[in-house]
Amino acid sequence: MSCLRYPISGTKLRMSERFTAIYHVHSDAASIEARARGIAVEQSVEMPVEGIEDVGVLEGIVGRVEGIAGIGPGVFEVRVGLAVATVLGADGRADAGQLFNMLFGNTSIQEGVSLVDVELPAHVVDGFGGPNWGIAGWRARVGAERRALTNGALKPQGLAPEGLAAIAGRMARGGIDLIKDDHGLADQAYSPFAARVAAVAAELGRVAGETGKRTLYVPSLAGTLDDMRGQVRMALGVGVEAFLIAPVIAGMNTFVALVREFPQAGFMTHPTLSGIARIAPPLFYGKLFRMMGADAVVYPNHGGRFGYSPATCAALAGAARGAWGHVKPCLPVPAGGMTLERVGEMLDFYGPDTIVLIGGALLAARERLTEEVAAFVDVVARHRFQ
Amino acid sequence: MSCLRYPISGTKLRMSERFTAIYHVHSDAASIEARARGIAVEQSVEMPVEGIEDVGVLEGIVGRVEGIAGIGPGVFEVRVGLAVATVLGADGRADAGQLFNMLFGNTSIQEGVSLVDVELPAHVVDGFGGPNWGIAGWRARVGAERRALTNGALKPQGLAPEGLAAIAGRMARGGIDLIKDDHGLADQAYSPFAARVAAVAAELGRVAGETGKRTLYVPSLAGTLDDMRGQVRMALGVGVEAFLIAPVIAGMNTFVALVREFPQAGFMTHPTLSGIARIAPPLFYGKLFRMMGADAVVYPNHGGRFGYSPATCAALAGAARGAWGHVKPCLPVPAGGMTLERVGEMLDFYGPDTIVLIGGALLAARERLTEEVAAFVDVVARHRFQ
Repeated sequence: MSCLRYPISGTKLRMSERFTAIYHVHSDAASIEARARGIAVEQSVEMPVEGIEDVGVLEGIVGRVEGIAGIGPGVFEVRVGLAVATVLGADGRADAGQLFNMLFGNTSIQEGVSLVDVELPAHVVDGFGGPNWGIAGWRARVGAERRALTNGALKPQGLAPEGLAAIAGRMARGGIDLIKDDHGLADQAYSPFAARVAAVAAELGRVAGETGKRTLYVPSLAGTLDDMRGQVRMALGVGVEAFLIAPVIAGMNTFVALVREFPQAGFMTHPTLSGIARIAPPLFYGKLFRMMGADAVVYPNHGGRFGYSPATCAALAGAARGAWGHVKPCLPVPAGGMTLERVGEMLDFYGPDTIVLIGGALLAARERLTEEVAAFVDVVARHRFQ
Repeated sequence: MSCLRYPISGTKLRMSERFTAIYHVHSDAASIEARARGIAVEQSVEMPVEGIEDVGVLEGIVGRVEGIAGIGPGVFEVRVGLAVATVLGADGRADAGQLFNMLFGNTSIQEGVSLVDVELPAHVVDGFGGPNWGIAGWRARVGAERRALTNGALKPQGLAPEGLAAIAGRMARGGIDLIKDDHGLADQAYSPFAARVAAVAAELGRVAGETGKRTLYVPSLAGTLDDMRGQVRMALGVGVEAFLIAPVIAGMNTFVALVREFPQAGFMTHPTLSGIARIAPPLFYGKLFRMMGADAVVYPNHGGRFGYSPATCAALAGAARGAWGHVKPCLPVPAGGMTLERVGEMLDFYGPDTIVLIGGALLAARERLTEEVAAFVDVVARHRFQ
């Protein structure tokens, strides 16, 4: 089998273009070179290189170890160059699922390795399109020019649409900017998506008519791509413009398809089922979800019910909203057991380009819900950044 | 807010029905009760229980700790009862994505906990429908009544359709039962799905015409649900009936939708991007993928490039093909660095209801590929089980 007999399609230039995946690997120094080569092969051709006869594949496709650096006792940073052509679809744009597949597919099942970063050519990044709204889109819709945004969660699971709408109305009367569904709210018989969205949208419209303050509802999408398309269309029809989606459950390409099909909509991602530590959170939620279209990314803040460190959270927020070519910035949404008492500290940590999400702690106020929300809104509005 | 004011839809019976999620939790004995209650709340209402006013939610929806048992030093098995209603769609059938969400969503992001099993009511299991073909379907199509099935992998990434078709033809001449795409083959410009499937199907048809032995091609699906539907239809049109899909990348509901929309097709799952250890492999690949429609499940065999133990592999195979109500059995496909030398041992370990997959090691034979495949086929055919 010669190179000529099985030619590679596409130009030589395209075939030789690489992106870089960066891994942290636990290994002893004697084994790290072989381990790094193993990852480079696993994430590209996944077969013994000596079995490959095609020169084009050997030169253009087989992963290359670009660097190995010790970063701690028994831990190495390994840089692997992978062929851009392996993640491009026939239309020349990168496929989101295939990008994750080539970055970390089989290697995710191996011990002692995590994916910490990826460096992509600008045309791959721009091919995804990034967020529809960006930070400016959220700010314009809730009338907040500079301050942080306030966000409550609609719960508990199990309430009927009218019950959820009543809670949403009481939160809106406190002046909150956003109300997102609990990510467990799907299309259950006790609270079908369409009935819930219609009831909540009507209630929020009523409150806005009285108070003059618009509260955005962010319902949670569920089911297949078809189901979600139907849900988005229904919601847009009653004036709901932003949506919560869990890319790990929906599938990366389902998420990207919705973002691109509904350019007028905003998308907030939820990390449910994403596991920990195997893909670095700043890369996963901050960089990749943003690139694929997240206008806002929910993640577990440090000091709550989850184990992220302050450094991880700061890096994640930086990746979500930092300058990045043509890609609009995305709002970080630190969450997971946040309380009113922590708002000041969170604002000083994250700054104003942040959505502060307090879920259950607001609802625990029960009959004082509106007052508790008003206090939350007031703390955010009056905060002076250090 | 009273129970009457926000009534729960659905019957009392349905609302009180529970399924059981079983976790292994690392904890000290003093903290395990609180930790278990924390998981039960996180995976159900995700808010302080004292904030819930609705009696129906408190009694019917809030997760219940059903049991805690020490299973080793600092490790506990925790059984949590969750409401079946939370995973059912408006049509009364369980939603695959929502099932994973309620089983392990946010808890997957916490340290020291893994999901090891789930006990579901029969109507939930039957609602998914299980495999289309089951073991009998594979056996009938390749003409193997009792023996294990042989499977090769089409690689490397980067070859054009003609190159891949030539390799497939050489494997087929050796008498192999199945040829699956490398999971990295998607819809790249250098090997678009339709061109690849047409070329491979034509070559396999030519070989079958000469040898009288049918080899099934199992191409890898990529992209969105829409893309995959188009790929399945195209492939069925040229006589290709079985498909490789990575549910973690595609999304659980994308996988289930395809299985149900194409009842004539067989589906083999690939574990790429599934990580390790956070969801027990026998549950994830063996039980849940089977329930959702896998006719065959690829997973890393012990002693290869991945870290699964023999016990994990045996449990996984048992879950995939053991008796389970109306759900057809599914063939285990142990893989990941297997070689001809290991076939005898693998057959004795797994028995005949198995697909033995050798990928790169066959291809490493290069010009002797057909002979190497024939030797593999011969070892499987002549094996006498101990």
